[in-house]
Amino acid sequence: MKQIRIGIVGLGTVGASVFKILGRMADFKITAVSVRDKTKDRGLDMAGVAWVDNPVDLAKRDDVDVVIEVMGGDGDPAYSLIKQALQNKKSVITANKALLAKHGLELAALAEANNVGLYFEAAVGGGIPIIKMLREGLVANKISAIYGILNGTCNYILTTMERTGQDFDRVLQDTQKLGYAEADPSLDVDGGDTAHKLSILTTLGFGGVPDLKSISVVGIRAVTAEDIRSADELGYRIKLVGQARQLADGQILNMVSPSLVPKSSPLAHVGGVLNAVLTEGDLVGQSFVAGRGAGGNPTASAVIADVMDSARGVKILPFIQPATTLSTKPKSSLSNWQGEFYMRLVVREEAGVIADIAPILRDQNISIESLIQKGRSTETSVSIIIMTHATNGQNIIDAIKKISTLKCVLENPFVMPVLKI
Amino acid sequence: MKQIRIGIVGLGTVGASVFKILGRMADFKITAVSVRDKTKDRGLDMAGVAWVDNPVDLAKRDDVDVVIEVMGGDGDPAYSLIKQALQNKKSVITANKALLAKHGLELAALAEANNVGLYFEAAVGGGIPIIKMLREGLVANKISAIYGILNGTCNYILTTMERTGQDFDRVLQDTQKLGYAEADPSLDVDGGDTAHKLSILTTLGFGGVPDLKSISVVGIRAVTAEDIRSADELGYRIKLVGQARQLADGQILNMVSPSLVPKSSPLAHVGGVLNAVLTEGDLVGQSFVAGRGAGGNPTASAVIADVMDSARGVKILPFIQPATTLSTKPKSSLSNWQGEFYMRLVVREEAGVIADIAPILRDQNISIESLIQKGRSTETSVSIIIMTHATNGQNIIDAIKKISTLKCVLENPFVMPVLKI
Repeated sequence: MKQIRIGIVGLGTVGASVFKILGRMADFKITAVSVRDKTKDRGLDMAGVAWVDNPVDLAKRDDVDVVIEVMGGDGDPAYSLIKQALQNKKSVITANKALLAKHGLELAALAEANNVGLYFEAAVGGGIPIIKMLREGLVANKISAIYGILNGTCNYILTTMERTGQDFDRVLQDTQKLGYAEADPSLDVDGGDTAHKLSILTTLGFGGVPDLKSISVVGIRAVTAEDIRSADELGYRIKLVGQARQLADGQILNMVSPSLVPKSSPLAHVGGVLNAVLTEGDLVGQSFVAGRGAGGNPTASAVIADVMDSARGVKILPFIQPATTLSTKPKSSLSNWQGEFYMRLVVREEAGVIADIAPILRDQNISIESLIQKGRSTETSVSIIIMTHATNGQNIIDAIKKISTLKCVLENPFVMPVLKI
Repeated sequence: MKQIRIGIVGLGTVGASVFKILGRMADFKITAVSVRDKTKDRGLDMAGVAWVDNPVDLAKRDDVDVVIEVMGGDGDPAYSLIKQALQNKKSVITANKALLAKHGLELAALAEANNVGLYFEAAVGGGIPIIKMLREGLVANKISAIYGILNGTCNYILTTMERTGQDFDRVLQDTQKLGYAEADPSLDVDGGDTAHKLSILTTLGFGGVPDLKSISVVGIRAVTAEDIRSADELGYRIKLVGQARQLADGQILNMVSPSLVPKSSPLAHVGGVLNAVLTEGDLVGQSFVAGRGAGGNPTASAVIADVMDSARGVKILPFIQPATTLSTKPKSSLSNWQGEFYMRLVVREEAGVIADIAPILRDQNISIESLIQKGRSTETSVSIIIMTHATNGQNIIDAIKKISTLKCVLENPFVMPVLKI
């Protein structure tokens, strides 16, 4: 094999891991890097490596065969440099889910037009080879559902809330101190990062255009320690799940939401910062894969698997089918969801509250599987936890609208889907 | 893509599934089949497909580009036909773990010499893409351990014993009636099939020659309902685990044994006929994958993933590194195992038994973590369940030899390793 010359853009945790590991592999030579801060000591041996100020210039260099982009960001310079590299007929390896979620269609089309590869195993699930699994391992299957725990920060927070009984705000603060959550945690805890990754999985599984706007997104801020306790009593754990499902009417449900997962499901046992994906295919049934979803070395492991594929000349379309044949899917919302629901109502501590709520549910054709009023508290409010039988999401939305107007209801009702997996 | 012409040897459950699915794919054309019984009605449309009596002849045909071998058996005709196909520069796709365990080295070398592919995703874990995961997805990692639940029949039996409290013989009979176990179940329940698959995973993970003789194999016949109950009380489940581990002295431990798996491990939650593999890599840490390990469609899913790889010309060495560089590993045994043990002794119901046993353990440097004497029974024998602290397998072997000679000990002691995963 001819030695392959590599340019790396970004030398953060992932980039530095990639640099070190590739440096030990005889088949590859790192010829150029581009970083924001050249003065920082990364403890890397930079002998013989060109420093390039503008990443777009790196993508034009004759001594670079393959470009690895691990700088992040859903716009420039990552966007322009990847375009430049593909136009210059260099294969690109990226870990950038935000960029792919926004510009994946255009970049895939550009890679195809230039007959080079666009690889992104590291963009979803870190070290878990979920892209390869969907794109190659399960390629004979018609995929009917993908469920993913795709954000380690959220899973760490939810697992810690479960273990300690503490509420979201407290656990978030501790998680930030540990370095598992950013100072501004919104991209993680509000579900945006999960949506980025889900959009990529949806494209691979269902042939849709990568499209954030088609995804209904709810994060984990509203989940309380009480929700987790109630779910536990009912036989469930709460996970932030990104799901893409083929619906009976041919549409794809695309949703990120804290969800109740039965304890019998493998997803329920994914703890801490781990990621996991459960897929359903017509031939193989359920497949499940779990592992480290982030961090320097796990992500570098995925980047280097892509480097090896590119070196072997594995020619596979970025999204399995030609980018021009990917179709736009309509936006999903909870109204597309068909199934059971968990509902928490915070109500005034007084007699007759359930008599007010029950008729609203009945009128929306929502049948109650169980209803727990959380003990008499010394406070003036109590929580009512309702598990419904299977129903239509629109019924739930309509019911909540009406319930919210009741005087006895003190907060916006909080609803989570119950997954049967 | 040029249409690829395919020959299939074997039209059992897997072969028939492959036939049907490939028949729907425009890029492929099945040109020839070879089966033992031509008269059987398989409900397949055989128009335009040549029936070839001798499978070795099929491997020579000019109208066959790729040969799929799904007939099984660790010798001829599978062996000869695969050799013939590779010699005739046809890529081969096989689900035949027994054959690969026995002749994998020779066949891989032959594929390499003829610059064609030898693919075997379907040989291990059915629909789970574990081969692709080890060979490509985790290729940047130095693998330190592989733990697999690789035989659906054994896992179904153990899970059913756990659920019903019934003993092995009774559950085996029911499993045979359900068709999940063969009339002669020995290849499954005595661990041979798991060993075949483990030998392939070991080769991919550690670069050893596929070699059944290097594997220490114990099946599940000796596991009792009482073992399962005792393990449960101690926080474990019993699974038949094939494991390959890098030991501190550089050797590879290669062992198939019923093992205690902590309930916190993802392997503990693999139920029924499912298969699963847990790997440990230096970059990515633990990765876990689970799914259907057998059956027509799941196995066909893996075969067709290989067909697609072969069609794309994915050139990857069968065992990652050249066959000539694979090394022979010394035989493993329980004496290589370092860790905690579960030990069941069936002893006479009389005072002083533990006073006889304890000094033997002490003299072998085995420290007892817990000892449970199973209630006073009306019978004349009772069971003693001992969990040891971490010790050397050789100490356990020596202790058992001595304990077996005690008059109060009525049966051969039964020992299982306790996995810390």
